[in-house]
Formats: sequence, C-alpha cells, structure tokens
Amino acid sequence: MTTVTVGILGGGQLARMMVLAGAPMGLRFELFDPAADACGGQLAPLQVAAFEDEAALAAFAERVDVVTFDFENVPARSAQFLAGRVPVYPNPDALAVAQDRLSEKTLFRQLGIPLPAFADIGSRDELATRVAEFGLPCILKTRRFGYDGKGQFRLRSAADIDAAWDALGGQVARTGLILEGFVAFEREVSVVAVRGQDGEFRAWPVTGNWHVEGVLSASLAPAQLTPAQHDAAIGYARTLAERLDYVGVFALELFCRGEELLANEMAPRVHNSGHWTIEGSETSQFENHLRAVVGLPLGDTRMLGHACMLNWLGEMPDADAVLAQPGGHWHDYGKEPRDGRKVGHATLREDEAGALAAALEDVGQQLGRPDQVAPAVAALRD
Amino acid sequence: MTTVTVGILGGGQLARMMVLAGAPMGLRFELFDPAADACGGQLAPLQVAAFEDEAALAAFAERVDVVTFDFENVPARSAQFLAGRVPVYPNPDALAVAQDRLSEKTLFRQLGIPLPAFADIGSRDELATRVAEFGLPCILKTRRFGYDGKGQFRLRSAADIDAAWDALGGQVARTGLILEGFVAFEREVSVVAVRGQDGEFRAWPVTGNWHVEGVLSASLAPAQLTPAQHDAAIGYARTLAERLDYVGVFALELFCRGEELLANEMAPRVHNSGHWTIEGSETSQFENHLRAVVGLPLGDTRMLGHACMLNWLGEMPDADAVLAQPGGHWHDYGKEPRDGRKVGHATLREDEAGALAAALEDVGQQLGRPDQVAPAVAALRD
Ligand SMILES: Nc1ncnc2c1ncn2[C@@H]1O[C@H](COP(=O)(O)OP(=O)(O)OP(=O)(O)O)[C@@H](O)[C@H]1O
Ligand SMILES: Nc1ncnc2c1ncn2[C@@H]1O[C@H](COP(=O)(O)OP(=O)(O)OP(=O)(O)O)[C@@H](O)[C@H]1O
Repeated sequence: MTTVTVGILGGGQLARMMVLAGAPMGLRFELFDPAADACGGQLAPLQVAAFEDEAALAAFAERVDVVTFDFENVPARSAQFLAGRVPVYPNPDALAVAQDRLSEKTLFRQLGIPLPAFADIGSRDELATRVAEFGLPCILKTRRFGYDGKGQFRLRSAADIDAAWDALGGQVARTGLILEGFVAFEREVSVVAVRGQDGEFRAWPVTGNWHVEGVLSASLAPAQLTPAQHDAAIGYARTLAERLDYVGVFALELFCRGEELLANEMAPRVHNSGHWTIEGSETSQFENHLRAVVGLPLGDTRMLGHACMLNWLGEMPDADAVLAQPGGHWHDYGKEPRDGRKVGHATLREDEAGALAAALEDVGQQLGRPDQVAPAVAALRD
Repeated sequence: MTTVTVGILGGGQLARMMVLAGAPMGLRFELFDPAADACGGQLAPLQVAAFEDEAALAAFAERVDVVTFDFENVPARSAQFLAGRVPVYPNPDALAVAQDRLSEKTLFRQLGIPLPAFADIGSRDELATRVAEFGLPCILKTRRFGYDGKGQFRLRSAADIDAAWDALGGQVARTGLILEGFVAFEREVSVVAVRGQDGEFRAWPVTGNWHVEGVLSASLAPAQLTPAQHDAAIGYARTLAERLDYVGVFALELFCRGEELLANEMAPRVHNSGHWTIEGSETSQFENHLRAVVGLPLGDTRMLGHACMLNWLGEMPDADAVLAQPGGHWHDYGKEPRDGRKVGHATLREDEAGALAAALEDVGQQLGRPDQVAPAVAALRD
C-alpha cells in the first residue's frame, strides 16, 4: 500500500477543494503556484514558483506521482515538460486545445458539435470583413488567457469596430483574437463530466448557469432542458472527451436558443458550475476528478434532489442566513477580500424544487441579494 | 471578517475529519497531540507536546480562538487550564463527567435514564460482594481511560473473581474500577447529537452498532427501533446534554433488550458511530460539532436514505470494491498500519434498504469480510 501524491498546478480554490475531496481517499497533495498566498496552501504543501521555472517543475515532479491542474492557462510547454517525467492528466495536448478558443472551436466543428459563427482575426481589416459577414452584435475575444469574461469586447454597431480593435488589437501577437457571432440565448448551461483512464465516461445532470458581467453568479441543477437537449449536451461532451483522450473532469459550456444548443467553450478542469456536486451529488466533481487522475473507479454522478450554487465575489457575506437553511452549505476559500475575486460560494440543496426556491428567496432577501437568486427561483417555479 | 482558529486537543482521525469539515466554513485549525505522526497533522499545523505540558498549552491557547477535543482522556486539569485562557467546548466539567464511568452512570441514574446495575469497586472483597448482588455474568471495568473495550474483564463465574482482580485490581488507585451488570442485549445503538451555544439541540437518526472484541465494526442508520424507543433514546441524550450544558457533538451508547433501552456510556466528542453522517446526512457530525463550537447555526441532521459504515482495523483493504459501488465512499486516515488500529472506514449509502443490503453483501464478498457486513445486511433485510 503506497501513498499516492497528486501534484496540482495552480493552488487556488479548485486545488483546495480537490485536497478536501482527496484526503479521505488517502491521497497526499503538492501544490505549485506563483502566488505565495494561494489559498490551497492552507491545506497542502505549496511550492511557490513561476509556471515557466523548469528547475522548480523538475523538483516538483520528483515529489509527486501524477500531475493535474487547477488552472488551465499553465504554459503548454510546462505541461509537456512535466509529462516527460510523470503522468499528467488531462494530457497536455487536450490542455493545449482547450487553451485556444480557435482550436477548440475548430474541433467542435469537426466533431459536429453545433456552435456560433467564429473566425480567426489577424488585423483590423479582417475584423471589419468578418463583422460584416456575421452581422451584429458579435464578440471579439482573445484566443488565449481569457477567463471570467476578461479579454472580450462586444460590438453592437459598426462604429464599435475601432473601439474593439483599440481595446484588443494590441494583443493579436501574444494571445491571438477570435470573432464570434453573438448568440441571443435564453439560457446558458454546462455539462460537467468525467472520463477515466480506461475510457469510462460519466456526466452529472446538466447545470443551468447565470453570469453577471461575464462572471458566473449562480448555477442550478438539474437545468431546465428537454430530455432530448439533455442527452444531446451530454453526447457532445462525450464525443469531445473521447476525441481528446481526456482523463479527469471538464466542463462544456453551451448556449440554449429555443431547441438549439450551441457550444461556447470547454474548461479542461473542475468547474465553478460543478461546485454544487459537493453536496448535491453522490460523488463530487473534485472526488471524481481525482479518482480519474489516480486510476480509481469513477463514482456515481446521480444527484440528490435540486441544488443551487451562489458565487461570492469580492468578499464573503455573513454565513448565518445560508447556514440557517436546512439545506445550506458554506464554502469560504480562505482568501483575502479583493474586488471581483471569487472568495467563496454557497450551495443550497433540497429534495423538492419548491423548497429550494423558498430557501433561495429567503437567502436572497436576508443577504440583500434578491437579483442573484431571482433567475434560479424563477427557473424552479417554472 | 476575522478568521476563526479552532484548537483541537488530539490530532487523530477525528481531528482530521473536523479539519476537512471545517475548512469549507473558512475555519483554520491548530492541533495538539503528543504523537508527532498524528494523522491530522497532514492537514493542519500540529503542536507536539504532552497534554500535561502547561507551557505548551499556554502557547497553544495564544494561537486559537476556541478549543475542542478529538480525544476525551485529556487530563481534566489541562482542559481547566485552557478554559482559563480561551473558550473550551464541551466545557471541562462535562468532559470530567464523561471521563469517569462512575460519575457518568451516577448522573444517568439521577436523570432517570435507565441503565444496568453498577457499583464502585475499591477492593477484591467489594468485588466479590457486588458480584453476588448483581449475579453473573458481569463486567469489571476501569472507571477512567477505557476505550475500544480496553480495561475490561468479563466475569462468567464466581471463579473469575480472582482473575478479574488480578487483571485490573492493580489499577484501582490510578483509574478506579466499576462493576456493571451484564446486559444480554439484542442490539446496541447510539444517539449522536449536537447542542449549540444557545441550547439548540439536534440529533441524527439513532444508529445501530456492532462490535467485535469491544471495537466498533459496523454501524447502520437508521437503527431498527420502534418509534417510541427512538424518541426515548433521543430524549435521554437531550436531557443529558441540557444537564451538562454541553456544547458540541456527543454520543450516547445504549443497549436494547426487548422494549428496554439501557444506557451504557457517553462519549464527549464526535463518535465513530456517527461517521456515516459525512455522506448520509445533510450535515455531518464533524461540521455540526464545529458549527456548535464556533457559534454558527446548527445544520440539518436529516438523513438521506440508508447508510452503513464499516471500520477498517489494522490496515486498509483494497479500495476498489467499495469505490465501484454507486454509493461507496472511502476514508483512509493516512495512518501507518498497526495491529487493531483504526486506520479508516467506508460508508455505503443508498436510497433504498434493499440496494444497501446488496451493496454490502457485494463488498463483504469481494473483500473476504462476509462476517463484517452480515449483521447490517440481516438488519436491512429484516
Ligand atoms: N458568442 C456569445 N454570444 C453571447 N454571449 C456570449 C458569447 N460569448 C460569451 N458570451 C457571454 O460571456 C460569458 C463569458 O464568456 P466566455 O465563457 O467565452 O468567457 P471566459 O472568460 O472563458 O469565461 P469563463 O471561463 O468564466 O466561462 C458567457 O458565459 C456568456 O454569458
Ligand atoms: N454492561 C455490559 N453488558 C453487556 N455488554 C457490555 C457491557 N459493557 C460493555 N459491553 C460491551 O463491550 C463494548 C465496549 O464497552 P464500552 O463501551 O464500555 O467500552 P469502551 O472501551 O468505552 O468502548 P468505546 O469507547 O469504543 O465505546 C460495548 O459496546 C458492548 O458491546
């Protein structure tokens, strides 16, 4: 019986929740993060170094049995470097695809996964041409390094072309740019799924998501989809995972417009929209990610009732309103407050949709956040 | 928003599971244990010192906001010493009562909680007199420091009196001795309950327990009791908690003989028979203990279906048989194997009793432990 040590690149809240899920399975952890105060370091040894520091990566590889990620923008070169020394899951090629909106969307298209119009943009002229082709509104995004809606510019009229180019054109060499047709979606959903080393695939029920200024605000599971949409969404995720020979948990974000589902992007890691699985499912995304990465049998992804996750940005609200709910669970990542920073979340779980709606309304009112809970309440009452 | 640090006296698996339950609530921990390899130290800072070391205790008190226990046999004097510096829950008086079988049983009697015959034993002659009075069989136990059935001697015939005195008489000065009438019970159950600083009381459904050689082997919740027995058991726990002004989680162990319930003992801490609450209840015993100790609202103790916990003693079995069950959950405490040591446990949870019985049988067969699962399977099929 040898102890297995999992190395995690990135030591933020996702790493922290992996440590909490993996410790009961007897796993040990080593974290690697450029920030000395990365919040996962409160629970596991943290090596502080730049992701590009190959000496540090080599030392890290010596101490771990397998490597995974809490952060998808680790340089592909660093992932490759580690993969030469120790198993790395998901594999660096899958990571590289997911890091680049253009290769990701090209793959979606190849696999027959429907998605909005998109085009690589290399110059202001190309932008103008594609805007004319796609019609307005549309969105200019950096190909790489975007997260939480950062590195995006929405074009509402032709007059915005200059402003968009001024905002993002300077990044064309470093990150690349992509233009996407704007989808007037009614809903956003995500498939959080896991694939094992033996190819076994499991997905949690599809989750409905609401963003505020590009950042996830609330997630509700199960999402309101027709059974056909539900199966289609999970089928896309499976196709994608198989093509990438993906191992571990990932999320596929989709827009719903009428009966249509259009893929937005893939996150090659445990995902904020899957946090509800900690209390709302037999096996959490964090536990199943680790089971996949260390080669244990995958756990059941059935859910228990209905669950809603509320993100806390900037600073933690008072915990009591949530903890006083019968199905209220609190997650404080142990971070310093900072404007817009994801510092924690709450999950409310109930067997019945009506009870969950009532609990959410109560929390929204007590915390003075009625807008944050309203969309989930409306969906539950629908 | 100040960070709350909880100090735990004892750094074993109970402390470890408290850390795992408390970290999501933003709590920090400091552990105190005489053993440098205490397994909680894998997840939180560990001060290694004797429980009697007042300089070390004073330094510990400086670093924490509140103190609790993973180990009930901390010297009452040390608990008192800490209580002069920082809040200590449960309070040292409650701890002192629970540390001594004689004061505990005297209190049960005062509170009208039924229990087997018992008497303080100071000499061989007193033992002989009480054996004659109680009838055989009966059990001689140390008053203090017993755990997992250690410090006990069963008397089956009058001829055992000498052997019993030879085994335990030498401890009369240090630990005291108590004689108890033997209960030919059909079942053993425990109430795991929690009381908050404001006096709020909550209990999980009563758990059925099976011991092997005095050590817990399996627990099943809910236990097979009549509704009247269930309510009586929880009522006893409540009476006891109120009388002791108890704050935190505790367990009350009871014997069932026909319709009768007879109290055995109280454990002033989270308890092995409550480990199933991690996956089987909305709020685990570990989380609710911490909520009580830091003054947060108590969480819901409703359970989700049926749950069975299997203890792993000595060394961990292979995890796959459990993890391959849909409701299978694994807990490896990260300890070195050692004969008879509690090194981990598994919990199986299912919505339906029949599914749980089938899962248990499968695990028992795959791990070559049919005897360990048999009583729970029989109870579920009953
Ligand atoms: N083509 C589009 N049409 C309509 N809305 C869009 C489009 N692309 C992005 N959005 C909106 O902006 C949000 C963030 O976009 P996207 O997921 O591309 O960014 P991100 O920075 O990768 O975010 P994250 O990693 O947090 O999901 C989306 O969830 C959606 O609400
Ligand atoms: N009076 C009794 N009659 C019958 N059986 C008894 C009696 N006392 C103890 N036992 C048996 O021995 C087991 C252990 O006894 P007890 O709970 O007193 O010991 P302990 O060392 O404090 O154990 P733990 O702390 O693990 O519960 C009981 O669970 C029961 O099975």
